Amino acid sequence: MKKIALALTALAMSLCAFAQDYKVPVTNINQNGYPRILEDNRVEFRLRAGQASSVQVDLGGRRYDMERTQDGMWTVTTAPQVPGYHYYSLIINGASVADPASRSFYGTSRWASAIEIPEEGWDVFEIQDVPHGQVRELNYYSNYTKSWRPVRVYTPASYEKGKKKYPVVYIHHGGGEDYRGWIEQGRTNIILDNLIAAGKAVEMIVVSVDSNVPSGGGGGYSPGGMTGYREELLNNIIPFIEKNFRVKKGPENRAMCGLSMGGGQSFQIGLNEPGVFANVASFSSGMFGGINGAADVDLEAYVPGILSNPAKFNQEHKVFYLSCGEQDPRINYTRATAAKLQEAGVNVRFNSFPGDHEWQVWRKSFHEFSQMLFK
Amino acid sequence: MKKIALALTALAMSLCAFAQDYKVPVTNINQNGYPRILEDNRVEFRLRAGQASSVQVDLGGRRYDMERTQDGMWTVTTAPQVPGYHYYSLIINGASVADPASRSFYGTSRWASAIEIPEEGWDVFEIQDVPHGQVRELNYYSNYTKSWRPVRVYTPASYEKGKKKYPVVYIHHGGGEDYRGWIEQGRTNIILDNLIAAGKAVEMIVVSVDSNVPSGGGGGYSPGGMTGYREELLNNIIPFIEKNFRVKKGPENRAMCGLSMGGGQSFQIGLNEPGVFANVASFSSGMFGGINGAADVDLEAYVPGILSNPAKFNQEHKVFYLSCGEQDPRINYTRATAAKLQEAGVNVRFNSFPGDHEWQVWRKSFHEFSQMLFK
Repeated sequence: MKKIALALTALAMSLCAFAQDYKVPVTNINQNGYPRILEDNRVEFRLRAGQASSVQVDLGGRRYDMERTQDGMWTVTTAPQVPGYHYYSLIINGASVADPASRSFYGTSRWASAIEIPEEGWDVFEIQDVPHGQVRELNYYSNYTKSWRPVRVYTPASYEKGKKKYPVVYIHHGGGEDYRGWIEQGRTNIILDNLIAAGKAVEMIVVSVDSNVPSGGGGGYSPGGMTGYREELLNNIIPFIEKNFRVKKGPENRAMCGLSMGGGQSFQIGLNEPGVFANVASFSSGMFGGINGAADVDLEAYVPGILSNPAKFNQEHKVFYLSCGEQDPRINYTRATAAKLQEAGVNVRFNSFPGDHEWQVWRKSFHEFSQMLFK
Repeated sequence: MKKIALALTALAMSLCAFAQDYKVPVTNINQNGYPRILEDNRVEFRLRAGQASSVQVDLGGRRYDMERTQDGMWTVTTAPQVPGYHYYSLIINGASVADPASRSFYGTSRWASAIEIPEEGWDVFEIQDVPHGQVRELNYYSNYTKSWRPVRVYTPASYEKGKKKYPVVYIHHGGGEDYRGWIEQGRTNIILDNLIAAGKAVEMIVVSVDSNVPSGGGGGYSPGGMTGYREELLNNIIPFIEKNFRVKKGPENRAMCGLSMGGGQSFQIGLNEPGVFANVASFSSGMFGGINGAADVDLEAYVPGILSNPAKFNQEHKVFYLSCGEQDPRINYTRATAAKLQEAGVNVRFNSFPGDHEWQVWRKSFHEFSQMLFK
């Protein structure tokens, strides 16, 4: 009887969804079905803010004015959205805040709302009935920051059984995000569970770090700005991981990658430490231009030898990967950088994905990069 | 040189903090030091909401009107707060939202702001330099809800080494919270790391579940309302844990506990399954009255035999524990229930802690209960 009741409920719900012609995003936490995704990926938002005189939704770089309805609610329907995960804010009489109707994630330097718009053909981003790894949260003591700092570690399904050792990816969030990003927003664990089960990626550990440490002198993307986090990664994070997990050592068994700020860190720290990392990827970094205007980046100054001695560089690096979203202002500069490297004889793979400076691009980037690793 | 520079920075910061006479709570995420804790635990809040006409802070059951200052910011200083972890909201022209200046937690049925006011003498709630366990997040498939559901599992520091088996606590959040609550808000992992290192608690695994499932018929606290979650716990969660972790079996090696809604679940499901759990605790449950008005709870109807055959009950239960906050409206009913049970000859330990229906009470409750377990 229970099975019949459940089946009837499921049927009623699917009929209901069909009749209503909208999808409720997985990022919703309330029960009333708002925000909701309409047929062509327009999004309808609702908020109770009866006494406000101005309410807006800030989504995808555009502000939409919400309209007050008779029942004291505010509502708006946006333009069609590209599939993927989008941060958004409500702006209530000038105060920019999170939407109580959606799940919050640490991003944009605060606990921000986000909406997930599913993309057909990418169920590799969804939990499947395959062997699942674990995501572990631990704290290590940093001698650099003199504080306890959190890290999340993905271990593949087989880790619990047996005594095998695994290669390790050190993966880096963007500015205004932290060690949670690649798990909560990026779904790294789900992607790898699915790729490993399909035989498309080798079993690996992924360490999702917090790279928000004092720069150590110099601005964000300058070589001097990297010395602080370099110290944190090489002398604090890696030794902690290698002491506490069954990992393979040597540069061929380590990868460093990241998005945006983390992509710049990976390029500058990762590529300059071939004795530590033989595998490096930079997703949607602004260091090549488009955001900071650095159209003529002196790559040789950032990574001595990269243009002047590509043979040595290629020998030292097994996988070197660059990517960017096709609607990201950074795309042309990243593409040009990849072309310049390839012309100089550097083995670099470049790919682009539909989308702006957003997580769907980074999920797809890691999805591709992870399949190239440790083979 | 670096050490000297760091020492000077630390000195400057401590002088600065002394001069300013306030503490920045660990729950802050912004850099400007608001909200801040003043000398007698009053809290000063600030928000940029220039065009609003009304902004309030809702903290500790009281609403404080914020005042607009000349620079377009809004500010208020509250009455003195009791130490501990307090959820709070901002109300901007009628819209109740989270404060972008503080960390958000899943609680009060949404991603809610919270402020942590440290309590002297309770550094057992802070990360110490002792061996640390891990908190693991996993998904299991529920045959009851027909969906993948998350769970967090604390494993003690020694779990990684060797082949030892451990007893298990199944710990339950309150209404409007989820499986994250006992880790993020409750600090269960930190408390146990410290108690185990001090030799005050035995090594144990803690499973922080999500008990938000359809009730299975009947309202929240009614016996019928428990059948859904009973099914989820006994036939889905426990088998998953016992298959995937090295656990000791048998009722003497299992505990069920929880706060508020989870305390009601623990009382009703846990005490009625002596073949599964020999250790049960209920923190701040409303089922005894004070909230739902159930002053004359028929305990025998909830747990047949508890009053009529206390000898059998005592034989079947190693630890039975009740607690409540001293400023919680549930306190008198919980105290009276404990007295009624003790008069009937039931071995129950009751304790109360300063505070309302809040996490500091629940941290202290688990801190005490965990030290009684599996000995």
